[in-house]
Amino acid sequence: MTTSPRKPSESAVRRLSLYLRALEELQAEGEVSAPSELLALRAGTTAAQVRKDLSAFGSFGRRGLGYPIDSLRVRLHEILGLSRKWRVALIGAGRIGAALFEYPHFRKRGFEIVAIFDADPEKTGTRWRDITIRPAAEMEEGIQSEKVQIVILAVPATSAQTVAARAVSAGVSGILNFAPVQLQLPPNVEVNDVDMAVELEALTFSLHARKRS
Amino acid sequence: MTTSPRKPSESAVRRLSLYLRALEELQAEGEVSAPSELLALRAGTTAAQVRKDLSAFGSFGRRGLGYPIDSLRVRLHEILGLSRKWRVALIGAGRIGAALFEYPHFRKRGFEIVAIFDADPEKTGTRWRDITIRPAAEMEEGIQSEKVQIVILAVPATSAQTVAARAVSAGVSGILNFAPVQLQLPPNVEVNDVDMAVELEALTFSLHARKRS
Repeated sequence: MTTSPRKPSESAVRRLSLYLRALEELQAEGEVSAPSELLALRAGTTAAQVRKDLSAFGSFGRRGLGYPIDSLRVRLHEILGLSRKWRVALIGAGRIGAALFEYPHFRKRGFEIVAIFDADPEKTGTRWRDITIRPAAEMEEGIQSEKVQIVILAVPATSAQTVAARAVSAGVSGILNFAPVQLQLPPNVEVNDVDMAVELEALTFSLHARKRS
Repeated sequence: MTTSPRKPSESAVRRLSLYLRALEELQAEGEVSAPSELLALRAGTTAAQVRKDLSAFGSFGRRGLGYPIDSLRVRLHEILGLSRKWRVALIGAGRIGAALFEYPHFRKRGFEIVAIFDADPEKTGTRWRDITIRPAAEMEEGIQSEKVQIVILAVPATSAQTVAARAVSAGVSGILNFAPVQLQLPPNVEVNDVDMAVELEALTFSLHARKRS
């Protein structure tokens, strides 16, 4: 509880998410402990990497017995900030916004979408399940009244910086950004960019490098 | 042309994509050269990181003059495997599939979606722009006849492994996987996972760690 590890790399944090998902799957399958090899297989990495990643957060493993699934799951849940609810607003009710809104995993992990904003008057006033889409002009007020902590930014690249800055000024501390722009925001705002072109280019880089070698 | 650098890390490849986008923007703005500080700002990193990343691929920078935008852009385009067309199939015509299909950046970068497959009989036969959605049963045949190299896998987690294995057996060499499962495929298949829960958890990890520290 009092461990204060050095900040892990972004890719290490991603692996923690994958270990957590693997532990949840294994628990659902009735397992109570898991060797590092099994976690590695489920998370797409090596057993040595699993042991290294997890040792940074304390000593979970018992030599020869594997990791105790339930306690490690609880600990990773805590480390990843999931042992609480996060109030999330979706900004941009387009196709990406709709896909994310329907994503079942978000709610399971404690991410509650409490507000949706869009600039298009055709969309505002309509409902997605029990949430009415509000006009972009009401964003600051809505973020404050709904106590939104995180926004999912799914707006066009041209408006992303302005919209993000407004959300931050209204009190948001985290942004999951789907717009293909580098947001310029105060350093106390956490931003995670999801850029589809970057993802696809990571793939073509590897395919191309393989042919070259 | 004959440089054969050691394999860069996944995050380094992602930064190359961001440098490429920054160079394209700067060129559109009429610039002809860019200091590392400017590329760093646009890509959300440090000038030292820019210089380190780019030096791994040869000597682009001219001391005091910045990077020549056009030649660096061409070189990154080549390194990222974008100086050719990629034939892409979309498997899964749901909300995520629709959002990706509409993404304008893909086509600009040479990714051409040439086929769409879905298991839902309600969807097959309908058209997205000029592409008719085909039944999942025709996937292998369609992948071969359309010479598909990359698939975007946007199917439910429960069917992702089976569908991916079928696509690979039909000759696909790269998969952009949106299903929250670790695919088990031959090592010669390149897979890039895009997991929305992992992305959101990377954000909550940082928010949570900040409060803790």
